[in-house]
Amino acid sequence: MSTAAAVSTPTTVQKLGAEVAGTFLLVFGVIGAALSAGFGGGEGNLNVGFLGVAFALGLSVVIGAYAFGPLSGGHFNPAVSIGLAVAGRFAWKDVLPYVVAQLVGAILGSTLLLAIFAATNGFDAAASFAGASTGYGVLSPSDSSLVTVLLVEIVATAAFLLVILGVTSSRAAAGFAPLAIGFTLTVIALVAIPLSNGSFNPARSIATAIYGGPDALGQVWLSIVAPIVGAIIAGLVGRILYADKR
Amino acid sequence: MSTAAAVSTPTTVQKLGAEVAGTFLLVFGVIGAALSAGFGGGEGNLNVGFLGVAFALGLSVVIGAYAFGPLSGGHFNPAVSIGLAVAGRFAWKDVLPYVVAQLVGAILGSTLLLAIFAATNGFDAAASFAGASTGYGVLSPSDSSLVTVLLVEIVATAAFLLVILGVTSSRAAAGFAPLAIGFTLTVIALVAIPLSNGSFNPARSIATAIYGGPDALGQVWLSIVAPIVGAIIAGLVGRILYADKR
Amino acid sequence: MSTAAAVSTPTTVQKLGAEVAGTFLLVFGVIGAALSAGFGGGEGNLNVGFLGVAFALGLSVVIGAYAFGPLSGGHFNPAVSIGLAVAGRFAWKDVLPYVVAQLVGAILGSTLLLAIFAATNGFDAAASFAGASTGYGVLSPSDSSLVTVLLVEIVATAAFLLVILGVTSSRAAAGFAPLAIGFTLTVIALVAIPLSNGSFNPARSIATAIYGGPDALGQVWLSIVAPIVGAIIAGLVGRILYADKR
Amino acid sequence: MSTAAAVSTPTTVQKLGAEVAGTFLLVFGVIGAALSAGFGGGEGNLNVGFLGVAFALGLSVVIGAYAFGPLSGGHFNPAVSIGLAVAGRFAWKDVLPYVVAQLVGAILGSTLLLAIFAATNGFDAAASFAGASTGYGVLSPSDSSLVTVLLVEIVATAAFLLVILGVTSSRAAAGFAPLAIGFTLTVIALVAIPLSNGSFNPARSIATAIYGGPDALGQVWLSIVAPIVGAIIAGLVGRILYADKR
Repeated sequence: MSTAAAVSTPTTVQKLGAEVAGTFLLVFGVIGAALSAGFGGGEGNLNVGFLGVAFALGLSVVIGAYAFGPLSGGHFNPAVSIGLAVAGRFAWKDVLPYVVAQLVGAILGSTLLLAIFAATNGFDAAASFAGASTGYGVLSPSDSSLVTVLLVEIVATAAFLLVILGVTSSRAAAGFAPLAIGFTLTVIALVAIPLSNGSFNPARSIATAIYGGPDALGQVWLSIVAPIVGAIIAGLVGRILYADKR
Repeated sequence: MSTAAAVSTPTTVQKLGAEVAGTFLLVFGVIGAALSAGFGGGEGNLNVGFLGVAFALGLSVVIGAYAFGPLSGGHFNPAVSIGLAVAGRFAWKDVLPYVVAQLVGAILGSTLLLAIFAATNGFDAAASFAGASTGYGVLSPSDSSLVTVLLVEIVATAAFLLVILGVTSSRAAAGFAPLAIGFTLTVIALVAIPLSNGSFNPARSIATAIYGGPDALGQVWLSIVAPIVGAIIAGLVGRILYADKR
Repeated sequence: MSTAAAVSTPTTVQKLGAEVAGTFLLVFGVIGAALSAGFGGGEGNLNVGFLGVAFALGLSVVIGAYAFGPLSGGHFNPAVSIGLAVAGRFAWKDVLPYVVAQLVGAILGSTLLLAIFAATNGFDAAASFAGASTGYGVLSPSDSSLVTVLLVEIVATAAFLLVILGVTSSRAAAGFAPLAIGFTLTVIALVAIPLSNGSFNPARSIATAIYGGPDALGQVWLSIVAPIVGAIIAGLVGRILYADKR
Repeated sequence: MSTAAAVSTPTTVQKLGAEVAGTFLLVFGVIGAALSAGFGGGEGNLNVGFLGVAFALGLSVVIGAYAFGPLSGGHFNPAVSIGLAVAGRFAWKDVLPYVVAQLVGAILGSTLLLAIFAATNGFDAAASFAGASTGYGVLSPSDSSLVTVLLVEIVATAAFLLVILGVTSSRAAAGFAPLAIGFTLTVIALVAIPLSNGSFNPARSIATAIYGGPDALGQVWLSIVAPIVGAIIAGLVGRILYADKR
């Protein structure tokens, strides 16, 4: 009898609960680090900077994937669920409930952060959440153009999905997938944060945009469309590169 | 005969010794890094900043959990012992001896750091330990409010415990738990250090407060209560999410 | 029947596709981070600095090796393919197709980055790619001499190959090789970036030099020759140190 | 037949060669990063700082232990060889040849770094190597006292050895020991670099002192004695904590 057989299949509540928990953790980690870096205690070289935020993003997914991945697969991101479905690795019928769970977790994360920060004088919620939202022009740390932001989000998310498809394929070393998946986010965040603030994840972008005012809300379509386009491209490439998978 | 059967059960001395050693290492690493960052050699961009302290915290628990976890389970934190007991993963009768061992290790760590730093002119012990203590107002790097600090400590410690429950569940990849547990502390420290100085651990907070003067001592209740409340919440959530555990 | 037997041998398309994908990821990660650090959003302490670029390089190879290594062996670097051939670990007849695939991936990476950054006003492509190119004098962050750059690239690449030979030898712990290989690049980048900009990889250097103007193109021979010399030295040392390998 | 039986015992040449290679890598990584950080290209926030040097140290031992540890055990440090002998985990008769190999590797590392940096104008070898040497007063980044430096080196090296004894004990998760051992050096370096420049390793300190002028040479006894004292203490504690080991 194999070890796997000794463990029952996760229930739907466990699967969706794991997606809520993991996406909550992702948003709490990366947006919390970004807000803390910009607020109060982060002056001068104490500020963890983009490097600290990139590690917060990557490590929050490393830990979420180890903790909750065994229940749900550890997507925590609508683009991941869609990309895996395109690649034939995830059932299309499960995409919608996963995306809803991811949105619940992400918005729970940003709402708790709002409550935490709002309890202190001197915190401008709308400005801070706009600063943590993804987009071009006023929302971009480098005032990058729409085309730049579209391209970097598409290419980076495609690279992210391609890594996921590789490290979860039948040839990959078991156990290391969460490390590789999370560290991929750190790498692409180091590239993309100065340009787009680094979304790669519609749920994360929606969660900050809802508290970020009109600019953030007006641009949120971009951080929904671009990651999904990138994920679809990677899903199609992955069907070729991992043709004999599973 | 399994590998596990070939190794004898750790004795009580080994278990409690491992908790002393691991909690000592945690305090020596994170408080030592914080004191060094603020003292002398850390001017300008040489200062490792909050990012360096967040890695010192996370990595000190990664290494402690690999080194001493096989003997004691690697709690190093009263909130962890209590949260695991709430979740049904740790015997209530062992909580008190574990907490005592954790306090011994933590205070050993802060006392050795005091001895190390006090041997050099120009080190103001009370001010430095107050700066490394957790709390609100004057103890917070961002002068955050009591409510902000309470909330961030509760939510962050709950997230920490939920990850622990996940990565030590029967479905998790064996061997990676220490990495995930330590990196969780790095993530939540990146969020919380600028607000509360990042406790999540009553033993760590008591160990610095005893040398930090009246403000630190007066607020230490907060860093005892909030992490334990967060741990209890996570323990209850974990009973649902990991219902079929072990 | 072993697990390995259940997985078919990768096809040539899969092998070369994996080298394209991995080298693309390496260039996208490290050059993207370097360009973003120098451009727009990276002012002051938000700039991820050489530490961020060193982690972008190392982690991009960690993830590429986990994702694509099971298909191709995960070279992503002509010096690696040649060094492994010298050590008797890779067939000489496969070196040329691997190098071509690596060049395709690397140039795809730098070309996409050019497209991403060029879409925004204020980006000086030639100056930026020259700044990310490897070399001495005007191309060196510290205005280092030709001899300094030659020596550091030879020694660092030799150390890199020696680690690769060790972690892929029959005695090594299975599964950890990608972590060790990638982190080696982080270590040698911390040493070499301030001197040479840190090549260790002819494909990466060619990919930036083609967009970096006459200085970058005029010095690219150095970043082709030096890493290959270092790799050959390590290959010969490795034949002694790992005499009973495989 | 076990996997281990299929691999022959390493020869003496392989063992000592592995110690030379690993200690070379350690010195090349950490001292190279420290010299590069202080020289030329490391101005302002591009300087990797003490955090970058702490990661260079830790990661160079992670990779050395994965690459060369399977041959020699991966000591790379006289204090480690002595501490393991005290704990009963290493034969006393092998200590001397190991220490000689470590000194050869360390001095090879510092000598190659001298050659690399000396080839560029503006590099003051004696001042730079003094700046990378360990000690108190003028050699300490924070002008710390002799007692402070003695204490921090003893306590930090004792913690380091205690982790080594734990992660190589029979209960530990196989394969993760190199990660834990290297990350321990990162943690204790974050504590000790601002005070003592962070030795924990007589071979590393001798390798920089020989090029660092009279102050460095005059204090090198301290970085030989203190780490060894710490290692002996840990070896004795380890005999109790891991009484039933192996």
